[in-house]
Amino acid sequence: MKEIVILRLGHRINRDQRMTTHVALTARALGADGMLLTSSDKSVEQKISDVTKRWGGGFYVRSDVTWRTEIKKWKEDGGKVCHLTMYGINLEEEVDAIRDTENLMVIVGAEKVPAEIFTMADWNISITNQPHSEVAALAIFMDHLQKGEELKKEFKGGMLQIVARRVGKEVKGIKNLKSL
Amino acid sequence: MKEIVILRLGHRINRDQRMTTHVALTARALGADGMLLTSSDKSVEQKISDVTKRWGGGFYVRSDVTWRTEIKKWKEDGGKVCHLTMYGINLEEEVDAIRDTENLMVIVGAEKVPAEIFTMADWNISITNQPHSEVAALAIFMDHLQKGEELKKEFKGGMLQIVARRVGKEVKGIKNLKSL
Repeated sequence: MKEIVILRLGHRINRDQRMTTHVALTARALGADGMLLTSSDKSVEQKISDVTKRWGGGFYVRSDVTWRTEIKKWKEDGGKVCHLTMYGINLEEEVDAIRDTENLMVIVGAEKVPAEIFTMADWNISITNQPHSEVAALAIFMDHLQKGEELKKEFKGGMLQIVARRVGKEVKGIKNLKSL
Repeated sequence: MKEIVILRLGHRINRDQRMTTHVALTARALGADGMLLTSSDKSVEQKISDVTKRWGGGFYVRSDVTWRTEIKKWKEDGGKVCHLTMYGINLEEEVDAIRDTENLMVIVGAEKVPAEIFTMADWNISITNQPHSEVAALAIFMDHLQKGEELKKEFKGGMLQIVARRVGKEVKGIKNLKSL
């Protein structure tokens, strides 16, 4: 797959900042290339830019986009669109077809999503048909899509790097771990 | 596995309500039996109880627990404890051993976790060594632990049930979908 971009809908300033930050951090850690945000709230963009500087990789956030314009443009350029929703069909039914896509946009809503999204998307996919979390849904989606390979991804160009340990904390590039 | 319980640490009233609710909803949707919360905040317990009434299953939340007491008691009763942390060793190294556990407690922190947790846990496990989200980490952990079987779990005794669809929304047990 060449590019995976997340389109985050329905972000409300103040109320959704943490949730949207978790969506972006999850997308980044699990191998997406960037996130588009349909809000003028620049706080998430700033926060993720700081994380990328410290921890590496090239993940971008672009705020203040118009969802209809972005989806249309993506599809015109040959990309496919997958909307994550508890109302959709099960991931396992379609994951092989989705994996064959070159450029994939993954739509993740906050609260209610406009009905038009369901018809614009190439796939409406559920991760269980139970209510839970868009962060959890995105995580499992990214993991199944990439067959767990994303868990081994290396992030280049950062200042910090964790050394995996059985007990305790070790980070290359930082002396005072209390600040973490 | 007989029982999986989540221990949620570091919940701050107001600031963490949504995040902790997402942890609980994710745990429930992905097959855990309950969540213990080290806070007197009853709002999450109430919210999850409402969800369980409507959507089925037997997931419980018990608030105001003391983490040290709960972990000790769990281990004395023969249970094992797995702490999810970005500093730990990779899930794939230990997931088979963890799967052999009869009763498993999964510790999920909010911000900083007491150092003692790292030594009390049988495993400190990371889902990537990048910063992301405890909700995403828990989701991937539950999924790998149960080899995706949890995605097929049925929830009995609820009032509502989603009918998976390629486009649109369909829920058994509800007439006015606008209220969702």
